[in-house]
Amino acid sequence: MINIGDIMMKFNLALCQMNVEEDKKANIKKAESMICASAKNGADFVILPEMFNCPYDNSEFKEYSEDINGETVSRISNVAKENGVYVVAGSIPERQEKQLYNTSFIFNRKGEVIGKHRKMHLFNINISGKIQFRESDTLSAGNAITVVDTEFCKIGIAICYDIRFPELLRMMALEEAKLIIIPAAFNMITGPAHWEEVIRVRAIDNQVFMAACSPARNEKSTYVAYGHSMLVDPWGTILEKAGVGEEIIYGCVDLEQIEKVRNRLPLLQNRRTDIYEIKRNNL
Amino acid sequence: MINIGDIMMKFNLALCQMNVEEDKKANIKKAESMICASAKNGADFVILPEMFNCPYDNSEFKEYSEDINGETVSRISNVAKENGVYVVAGSIPERQEKQLYNTSFIFNRKGEVIGKHRKMHLFNINISGKIQFRESDTLSAGNAITVVDTEFCKIGIAICYDIRFPELLRMMALEEAKLIIIPAAFNMITGPAHWEEVIRVRAIDNQVFMAACSPARNEKSTYVAYGHSMLVDPWGTILEKAGVGEEIIYGCVDLEQIEKVRNRLPLLQNRRTDIYEIKRNNL
Repeated sequence: MINIGDIMMKFNLALCQMNVEEDKKANIKKAESMICASAKNGADFVILPEMFNCPYDNSEFKEYSEDINGETVSRISNVAKENGVYVVAGSIPERQEKQLYNTSFIFNRKGEVIGKHRKMHLFNINISGKIQFRESDTLSAGNAITVVDTEFCKIGIAICYDIRFPELLRMMALEEAKLIIIPAAFNMITGPAHWEEVIRVRAIDNQVFMAACSPARNEKSTYVAYGHSMLVDPWGTILEKAGVGEEIIYGCVDLEQIEKVRNRLPLLQNRRTDIYEIKRNNL
Repeated sequence: MINIGDIMMKFNLALCQMNVEEDKKANIKKAESMICASAKNGADFVILPEMFNCPYDNSEFKEYSEDINGETVSRISNVAKENGVYVVAGSIPERQEKQLYNTSFIFNRKGEVIGKHRKMHLFNINISGKIQFRESDTLSAGNAITVVDTEFCKIGIAICYDIRFPELLRMMALEEAKLIIIPAAFNMITGPAHWEEVIRVRAIDNQVFMAACSPARNEKSTYVAYGHSMLVDPWGTILEKAGVGEEIIYGCVDLEQIEKVRNRLPLLQNRRTDIYEIKRNNL
């Protein structure tokens, strides 16, 4: 349906701010139904939140974990294929041998895995009396920057705390990602303080679209997500923003906006690469 | 007066949001009087805005330019010394041989120049029907990252458009700047869209204090500055924020806040320097 030159510049996103519960099967089923609904409403890309099949809790990651042949990947692959949509499947606890990772699988319209991102920066926070969380107690970090190619443009994927590191998002933009997707679960401390600002400024600095997808705010959870999934354009304008409950927000990525913004204010050209560069170390 | 261990952790800033006019002598006089007033009110550091002695206009930079032995530097040096305060003298058009630079001179309490920053990223913007400005038509870019040492902490200085480049501010933080001072003149397009967000997120990412000082909004000027000078803490909270007119805002930098924030959320430690680094090229 999207094969005429100038139409290829635009595509539709659905950000599924799903309510993640304790029941893994219910979570997968919910993800499937939200993907179906998104596709019916014209989405080309459907995005799920971080840890969409599992409570965000160190004590649960192992039990809920799967490998790439597990039920979650297989069912999301099927629903992507049946509906002919791309899916950035938020993240799940992924098991490989004895290691656990916080991993996002990315599916094309045929349901094929075209990329996966393992969270590179593990979230450790310690605010006395308010919140403590150490992902590194249970999870291992990924070592790869993830930019996948699609029929529209290159897309970068990073998970939650990864967005805190401007170097990573800059590298994705330099690798020509035009949209950066962030499944994320900021909390009730970092959310009000930083969520919107950091997402917007990554868009502003790199002149890319940013789509950040949170779980709904579940007060019964041990870790309460902030919500407010959002789509931001390359000028930093919020195009769409969810509330705190379960909902799907829809928005359009118009790639022409990127060229327009970069012509107005040529930030990427004006970098002083004679003075500094971001160097990628290969592990 | 500030020589006891625990008091050294705190110091006072004054951000002089001065109204810059066409009359150079009047501008210098205004800067002097604002520095005196700031010192009387207990400031340790006084900050002036970008191009405080000159209209922000390509056609004026040459005429208003001076070298380090010129009247502006000499008079600001004297007023720093007489009042025993540090001064980050916003910026002026600096002439060296045939080149012009947008340069910030930094003075210690004795009136000695302890550093200077030449704007590294020249501002070029082109928004059809709204704003065009090409600094690179008249100015040359500096080639150095500027971090100076003071009795309190290291301080980074960058000018306006320099703040657009997260690499530069990250390098300053890695060189242990705890406060980054930005004399700046965002305009009526970029100001409402980006000013507050970018300042706050540089503070959030690098867990440093940010002090950004704008000229007052002068509607008679060919280039209308946005105003809203502000001081932001390492958690991204706005401590002080000016309106649009001429005023001095005062705020306290408490260095203990930095350690507190970095202990809560160890962003600088959690960088994946095994995967990426910012490499400094020496010219």
